[in-house]
Amino acid sequence: MLDFGLILDNVRKKTPLIHNITNYVTVNDCANILLACGASPIMSDDADEVEEITSICGGLNINIGTLNRNTIPSMLLAGKRANELGHPVLLDPVGAGASKLRTETACRLIDELELAVIRGNASEIKTLAVGTGSTKGVDADEKDQATVDNIERIIDEAREFSFGTGAVIAITGATDIIVHGRQACLVSNGHPLMSRVTGTGCMLSALLAAFVTANKERLFEAVCAAVIAMGVCGEIAQRRLSSLDGNSSYRNHIIDAVYNLTAEQLQGGAKYEMR
Amino acid sequence: MLDFGLILDNVRKKTPLIHNITNYVTVNDCANILLACGASPIMSDDADEVEEITSICGGLNINIGTLNRNTIPSMLLAGKRANELGHPVLLDPVGAGASKLRTETACRLIDELELAVIRGNASEIKTLAVGTGSTKGVDADEKDQATVDNIERIIDEAREFSFGTGAVIAITGATDIIVHGRQACLVSNGHPLMSRVTGTGCMLSALLAAFVTANKERLFEAVCAAVIAMGVCGEIAQRRLSSLDGNSSYRNHIIDAVYNLTAEQLQGGAKYEMR
Amino acid sequence: MLDFGLILDNVRKKTPLIHNITNYVTVNDCANILLACGASPIMSDDADEVEEITSICGGLNINIGTLNRNTIPSMLLAGKRANELGHPVLLDPVGAGASKLRTETACRLIDELELAVIRGNASEIKTLAVGTGSTKGVDADEKDQATVDNIERIIDEAREFSFGTGAVIAITGATDIIVHGRQACLVSNGHPLMSRVTGTGCMLSALLAAFVTANKERLFEAVCAAVIAMGVCGEIAQRRLSSLDGNSSYRNHIIDAVYNLTAEQLQGGAKYEMR
Repeated sequence: MLDFGLILDNVRKKTPLIHNITNYVTVNDCANILLACGASPIMSDDADEVEEITSICGGLNINIGTLNRNTIPSMLLAGKRANELGHPVLLDPVGAGASKLRTETACRLIDELELAVIRGNASEIKTLAVGTGSTKGVDADEKDQATVDNIERIIDEAREFSFGTGAVIAITGATDIIVHGRQACLVSNGHPLMSRVTGTGCMLSALLAAFVTANKERLFEAVCAAVIAMGVCGEIAQRRLSSLDGNSSYRNHIIDAVYNLTAEQLQGGAKYEMR
Repeated sequence: MLDFGLILDNVRKKTPLIHNITNYVTVNDCANILLACGASPIMSDDADEVEEITSICGGLNINIGTLNRNTIPSMLLAGKRANELGHPVLLDPVGAGASKLRTETACRLIDELELAVIRGNASEIKTLAVGTGSTKGVDADEKDQATVDNIERIIDEAREFSFGTGAVIAITGATDIIVHGRQACLVSNGHPLMSRVTGTGCMLSALLAAFVTANKERLFEAVCAAVIAMGVCGEIAQRRLSSLDGNSSYRNHIIDAVYNLTAEQLQGGAKYEMR
Repeated sequence: MLDFGLILDNVRKKTPLIHNITNYVTVNDCANILLACGASPIMSDDADEVEEITSICGGLNINIGTLNRNTIPSMLLAGKRANELGHPVLLDPVGAGASKLRTETACRLIDELELAVIRGNASEIKTLAVGTGSTKGVDADEKDQATVDNIERIIDEAREFSFGTGAVIAITGATDIIVHGRQACLVSNGHPLMSRVTGTGCMLSALLAAFVTANKERLFEAVCAAVIAMGVCGEIAQRRLSSLDGNSSYRNHIIDAVYNLTAEQLQGGAKYEMR
């Protein structure tokens, strides 16, 4: 059995400093979820400083949610410097498939950087792994989502993509699929309501960056732990909801649940299956 | 009687995807209120992708709250593409009157785009409709607000502005005034505390974009429904406040109330008068 | 005894309009805390309008948390205009010491502008005051923090810095140190949990800008009042936390506490010592 509690404890003990080049929509929630899990965030996206900033950090979280001509060069500069320093780099290819700029930028980051983790929804990852993929903006198209019928194919595609990039591939949705070379893990934690909160994907990516930075020697396990942690916290938060609460309270409860998450809750609540 | 419940149901059923070019102050709340009402948000403001992004959406929400030299051309590009595709375009001229850049940008957007809705406070709309208007930053000046004495004049000015632009004009404040050509509606829902939460105007604009996108064939009714919905939710949220709560909890309660809003609450709580 | 209640009352009565050129991470919280204390926020960072925007405001809050090549010239332009108009200008040198760009930008703003207040953590202020200072990203390094052993040296350094710049220097941490020329005040309000919420420093800077703008004739007292207010609200908010709450609820409670803060709570809860 994987020891997810130990992974979490490492984050809390090592308090990794994470450099985020991310979108302005969910950036505050990403900062607060990093603080909630025991890590520290720094946001910086100007080409004149990103290499220096990433140097004082332990890991780099690149999120293309509101990419633009100023921040794209910064993503490449910071990513290369992080690679030189051996810092884990995570890519969240938000909206890959929704525009040429997003797809091409994600492809360029994958080509030019050594990525530790690529996390996206089913449509984003399909776009990048197979070259086709529908997308409904920043949400996955229903026909790309994992079902009993297509899950083996999705795992196979993710394996190819993982072999090609060297990265752990995390496809999140109702069932989360985590693949690293021959290893694969299916996670069924979480709650459908999470898709009604903006940035649960971005928040998970920030969390992932912290988990892998504090657990560099066990990358796959760290990715599984972070994905499960987010799902377990989504469940804990959902149980706190009163009949008057909605997605705004839910967002607060999710971050609060990460703040209070114990090794026991994480290990005990994990619903996963190795493939 | 207008059927606001049906308008809301259409948003929930059609889950319109809304492209937002908006400010970085309130963008997270705009995304969450769109998810709360049943719509989906995508934020994108780089000139290299906005036309493509708006093409996969159903409606466009342009908010000039933190406009800059990079995003102004994007607003025009996206707006023109949305017009070509017949997508409703909403303009929120935040701070028009507070700087030449804001006033001129708003005027240029009005000149070059076909707008479905223009929503602002009394000072912003007066600046654009009549060419004069005080402004206290992003808040309306007291002397521009609607009172028993000046409301007929404000309605007349809004009518002119609506005829000139073809847009539904929504002037929000203690009394909200909605005008489309000869039609006019006064709404007295809402609560004074809403002005103590940053971005209630921006959130309403996002909501409006979703409501009109899902109800293109009944534009005026959809605008009335969204304005009333925001007001009714402000009232529901206010009733949840404990003595220790303030504007931060109130923000969360407002979004939660939109999430839980029923057709019955909307129809039953509506306080409006046709003119 | 200093009359902090009067300082707060002045903010509530004068409702100062504050121009913020600030980072996109915590900007929403800054806007809401300004509204909570009775002030009004406007955010604007484009060089084409910042001088005009600052002219209609009463004070200027410059925060370099996500500075970039577009916003740095805006900070200088707005700052110079605010100086001409006699508006108080506050600088929050977020991450000074973490990159050459941040350190140099902060130094340039200090050189070219007349600042009313400079607020930062121990590492940021040390970097600017003495030219050395460690930094853990946007957090102070432990070895720069005030202790019984080094506090006299820190006060002396702050005095030099205050004499050199003319500004009130506010160094915030477990013990807050406020220095203006020969005057010095140590504040021990607040709660360690505040460091687990992103942007408590930024929020305090926004609050400071409002307090000094509404109390220009008693600058030092206004800075002390704002620092104490933030600490007292951190304590009030902490007492509201249930066992399931974490840093997200805590953020909301802090802003709510500012909203509800009374002169009596502020005066009665103040824990400070003049030096």
